Amino acid sequence: MVAKSELKFIRSLRQKKYRQRHGLFVAEGVKLVADLLASPLAAQQVYTTDPDLFPEAIPISERDLGTVSSLVQPNKVLGVFRIPEAEPLQFTDWVLALDGVRDPGNLGTLIRLCDWFGIGQLLCSPDTVDAFNPKVLQATMGSIARVRVHYAPLPEILGDCPVPVYGASMEGRPVGSESLPQAGVLVVGSESHGLGESVRSLITATVSIPAFGRAESLNVATAAAILLYEIRRRGDGTIQR
Amino acid sequence: MVAKSELKFIRSLRQKKYRQRHGLFVAEGVKLVADLLASPLAAQQVYTTDPDLFPEAIPISERDLGTVSSLVQPNKVLGVFRIPEAEPLQFTDWVLALDGVRDPGNLGTLIRLCDWFGIGQLLCSPDTVDAFNPKVLQATMGSIARVRVHYAPLPEILGDCPVPVYGASMEGRPVGSESLPQAGVLVVGSESHGLGESVRSLITATVSIPAFGRAESLNVATAAAILLYEIRRRGDGTIQR
Repeated sequence: MVAKSELKFIRSLRQKKYRQRHGLFVAEGVKLVADLLASPLAAQQVYTTDPDLFPEAIPISERDLGTVSSLVQPNKVLGVFRIPEAEPLQFTDWVLALDGVRDPGNLGTLIRLCDWFGIGQLLCSPDTVDAFNPKVLQATMGSIARVRVHYAPLPEILGDCPVPVYGASMEGRPVGSESLPQAGVLVVGSESHGLGESVRSLITATVSIPAFGRAESLNVATAAAILLYEIRRRGDGTIQR
Repeated sequence: MVAKSELKFIRSLRQKKYRQRHGLFVAEGVKLVADLLASPLAAQQVYTTDPDLFPEAIPISERDLGTVSSLVQPNKVLGVFRIPEAEPLQFTDWVLALDGVRDPGNLGTLIRLCDWFGIGQLLCSPDTVDAFNPKVLQATMGSIARVRVHYAPLPEILGDCPVPVYGASMEGRPVGSESLPQAGVLVVGSESHGLGESVRSLITATVSIPAFGRAESLNVATAAAILLYEIRRRGDGTIQR
């Protein structure tokens, strides 16, 4: 049986301030927890209703799991993991930077997208939603184990950055007509506010996605998907035909 | 004052069966309703708490609007619109087809994406979420006015289709190595089940998005974003360098 105080502690990690105080976060569900256990992330404690699946985990009752779970349908296992230490950003490859992305589903999708395109570093403005928020984690589908997320004021980093900085903007030049180097930073903003003033002034070039219809904008994750695809497709200094 | 029976009728349109029975759907919020009123869609009735903004609408109290609204924060106006009549699909341009996409947010994003890329026709399998569901409508950001959504069993349409059918699949050839014609059908499946058997057998070619990292899959909307971008970028029979 898991002590009441321990359950209370796990529940407290739903809040960002307790995650930050303890340097811990909670992941749930068979797939996500198994992915994280197989990754370099350090598990502090794992609880399961199914010891056959997770023999080294602490047994927990369905009822107790229900009281600490953030899922509508708790799924057999919950792990408490260490938030990885922040390491300095390396500018040897592309870095994706997010300016004020507040929707947890969008952030999760963006982390998964970085993982797909082998972008190992994601830089987030302090007002971007916390990557260790339970909703974000679920949407990453395990990719959180392979993408290092940094939170820092963007101007601080971009103002002192050795590679070109590209900003996604409706007013930018079509991405196909811009030369894309092998390393750079791509900044995408929130849908409602776009890129902030202080960020705009630090941008080398703005790029846009050609429109063929009349939609006013693209969702931030779909826009980033297209731009990262272009970057990987020809991130070698060439301009497309 | 709006009659109780009228409020009850509006509320009933949250359910697909009543939307289908009456051929009507509800849209909410200043931006979405204004977009739809400016479109060829026919408004049956519009209700507003702010007659200065919508002078021709029926006044409704905040309280009554609250009882019929699907929004957490009702936003001044609600319109009842006619679901457009289904017209036969035209295969003179690309058509996007969805096989079992059940998440309302994903469908809304896909409709917005079609609008961005000027894809005027979206074909949905019958088990795809209803495009006139309130959550889908909100996520379309008004693009529902410009994209015609058809529901039909995919094999029925694809089995008798004059243009090549491309299926998005992890096992497909990289999209860059496939020739893309000026007109075709692109089929994307649900994330959990991929493309159904009956659909697979009707596909001319499967295409994939090159992976550079270790994510197991992409979200359906981000995958479609990249493929539609490629189609528009070079939908002229060429193969990319």
